[in-house]
Amino acid sequence: MTAPTETQPLSSAGFGSLYAEIQQFYARHMQLLDGGAADEWAADFTEDASFSVPTVPAPVVGRDALAAAVRRTAESLASAGEQHRHWPGVFDVRPRRDGSVVVHSYTTVYASPRGGESRVHRVCTCTDVLVREGGRLLVRSREVIRDDLR
Amino acid sequence: MTAPTETQPLSSAGFGSLYAEIQQFYARHMQLLDGGAADEWAADFTEDASFSVPTVPAPVVGRDALAAAVRRTAESLASAGEQHRHWPGVFDVRPRRDGSVVVHSYTTVYASPRGGESRVHRVCTCTDVLVREGGRLLVRSREVIRDDLR
Amino acid sequence: MTAPTETQPLSSAGFGSLYAEIQQFYARHMQLLDGGAADEWAADFTEDASFSVPTVPAPVVGRDALAAAVRRTAESLASAGEQHRHWPGVFDVRPRRDGSVVVHSYTTVYASPRGGESRVHRVCTCTDVLVREGGRLLVRSREVIRDDLR
Repeated sequence: MTAPTETQPLSSAGFGSLYAEIQQFYARHMQLLDGGAADEWAADFTEDASFSVPTVPAPVVGRDALAAAVRRTAESLASAGEQHRHWPGVFDVRPRRDGSVVVHSYTTVYASPRGGESRVHRVCTCTDVLVREGGRLLVRSREVIRDDLR
Repeated sequence: MTAPTETQPLSSAGFGSLYAEIQQFYARHMQLLDGGAADEWAADFTEDASFSVPTVPAPVVGRDALAAAVRRTAESLASAGEQHRHWPGVFDVRPRRDGSVVVHSYTTVYASPRGGESRVHRVCTCTDVLVREGGRLLVRSREVIRDDLR
Repeated sequence: MTAPTETQPLSSAGFGSLYAEIQQFYARHMQLLDGGAADEWAADFTEDASFSVPTVPAPVVGRDALAAAVRRTAESLASAGEQHRHWPGVFDVRPRRDGSVVVHSYTTVYASPRGGESRVHRVCTCTDVLVREGGRLLVRSREVIRDDLR
């Protein structure tokens, strides 16, 4: 295994702080997404970040393209009268020697039509590479896989 | 922005400890609720706490009224043979300079009829203001919004 | 209450580190389970661990029996074309004076048939006793209760 993919040993306290920081990062990140705050959400990615999902043939690259995709989805949900909630969790956090962090997690998406019954919409796994820029964590790459399309 | 609503800068270690404490608080709090432990659950609120939900016209105020509401729900679920689980998560934790903490989170409620199929019952957002009394975190105010009633 | 069941007082920082370690433990543990990595998953239990579930008359005991049960389930799901996800959370973490940790948590299981609709499959509560061997946390006993069979 080459150096950048090796796990970085951290003290127990260091890992605890990082784990909390990462949970806080994803909480705010997904609340921005579900609130339709496209630009603030896209600012959580590096400028050249890559986002792969199974329903799009090529990865979406860069903050502008990411924000545009979120705006389209937000408009479509608003006109359908449906609220989505992206729930991230089950975080397997792997710090690497180069300072980046690989996070293997699950995301469940719930859908609630106005006046209707809430339901599970999607169950996904998510592999992110996080890097630190100016003290902040940012997503450099994200790969999402949907359980129903495996 | 006035002082009480400003974010309190914390060390990375201080934030990590607080984040864990808050997760532990909500875990125990929701397990008490789902177990029908009305008084122990209500003891997690300040004496004059206010709880707003969309299906009740005015906020429920104070531990006694909160505990009474939980007892009514527990009795109704028991006679219906249905178990509810309140699952809190996606915690966006904002410490303020006055020592209080604003927590923006999601709560999903699952319902399981005895011998039947479990399902998503509700998807909600929750904004709490937590304060510290005698070292313990307590809820001073809670505002719950249901995604299906937005 | 006898000494081993008393709660161990920890510093705020110590509790924060432990809470993160436990979340990381469960994340990896459940991802191994859902990926069908039966032996790696079973290695998260002590050699003589006991696992009680409501649908099996006697507890499953020991790593070999635990791994065999996971292999059977993985084969059955693969031939049915269904992906399960075990989502652990709502962790109420109670360190004890003897160094063990009691964790009362919830687990939701989602099911996604290939090409079909994802759904909630099970809602469970889980009580684990974790012990430390060679620095690692391991499950010494697990008791799972399904909400629909209460």
